[in-house]
Amino acid sequence: MKSFTKHLWFNTKKRRDYIHITDQINDLVCQSEIQEGFCLVSAMHITASVYVNDNESGLLEDIDEWLEGLAPVNPDYKHHQTGEDNGDAHLKRMILGHQVMLPITEGELDLGPWEAVFYAEFDGRRKKRVVVKIIGE
Amino acid sequence: MKSFTKHLWFNTKKRRDYIHITDQINDLVCQSEIQEGFCLVSAMHITASVYVNDNESGLLEDIDEWLEGLAPVNPDYKHHQTGEDNGDAHLKRMILGHQVMLPITEGELDLGPWEAVFYAEFDGRRKKRVVVKIIGE
Amino acid sequence: MKSFTKHLWFNTKKRRDYIHITDQINDLVCQSEIQEGFCLVSAMHITASVYVNDNESGLLEDIDEWLEGLAPVNPDYKHHQTGEDNGDAHLKRMILGHQVMLPITEGELDLGPWEAVFYAEFDGRRKKRVVVKIIGE
Repeated sequence: MKSFTKHLWFNTKKRRDYIHITDQINDLVCQSEIQEGFCLVSAMHITASVYVNDNESGLLEDIDEWLEGLAPVNPDYKHHQTGEDNGDAHLKRMILGHQVMLPITEGELDLGPWEAVFYAEFDGRRKKRVVVKIIGE
Repeated sequence: MKSFTKHLWFNTKKRRDYIHITDQINDLVCQSEIQEGFCLVSAMHITASVYVNDNESGLLEDIDEWLEGLAPVNPDYKHHQTGEDNGDAHLKRMILGHQVMLPITEGELDLGPWEAVFYAEFDGRRKKRVVVKIIGE
Repeated sequence: MKSFTKHLWFNTKKRRDYIHITDQINDLVCQSEIQEGFCLVSAMHITASVYVNDNESGLLEDIDEWLEGLAPVNPDYKHHQTGEDNGDAHLKRMILGHQVMLPITEGELDLGPWEAVFYAEFDGRRKKRVVVKIIGE
């Protein structure tokens, strides 16, 4: 059994942003030289998501508008009594999920033709990490 | 370490459908002959889900109605400017999630008595794949 | 490859409750003596969640209120024709998800500074299980 661990850093200019990271993950899978295994991609900050969906700009706008409808920016979250202002970000990240597990088969990500991996930021403009851990052989 | 990979195909008659697949996954776990490990079941198309919940027909109707409330069919999604009409399906699939990881203990799925694995289709009537990958020993 | 499996039991006094379990998971990771691997934490009952977010009491109240808005207690769920009264719990658990996969690096959970693992109960006051399975070496 082999393991391979890297941390990716993100620092978005906008408070909310959606970054396509499939190519970065592919590069790490190559570096790992693991042929059969699992690749975990997981946000280490609790106001961000990692998810799989279409890499299509209209859909990214739809997702952002939809999340704002389901978990709106709102000054009244009890979490804000701590001095924070990102209650919506903690909730939005639950809808999309914070991690995905990608199968590796014959040395490559075993993804469908339209599966694209995204880092979704809901409280950006500061450095945040994603862990990529691959286990296999 | 052993690995085992199969792809399941689905082609639903209805646009939205919920298919109980625990028995199919169990069969693959037996075929794999893996005693201790993890079994990933992941939709390879981005308008479908794989999730775990109760195998009860009333609940399946509740889930469908609930998802339609949270992410309705709507002609106004920006994604539809590409010619697609399945914006709701891309969003519904985010609520239920697109994958589950099932533990295998002593050669069997280590599930609770009511845990049932489902493939949920939100834009059916065409062939779609699910990857089942098992890693263990 | 090594594997390690334990089941945690919960029996909450309240119907809905949110229990911080990071320390319990850490203890199991230590017991497993696995240095590099994956730790699956998965609810075995279908009206409960396991998720990662902030361990902050205001946010826990926000999450509970938000889930009640998205998937309210309601006598009209079709699932209730079976005699059950927990339709909302089956839906709430889909929002937060029922499992997380935690990376283990150099013998410890590889989590961000604010990542906290929670067991969320939506139909409590009875015994329920969570499986913790670690695979690695």
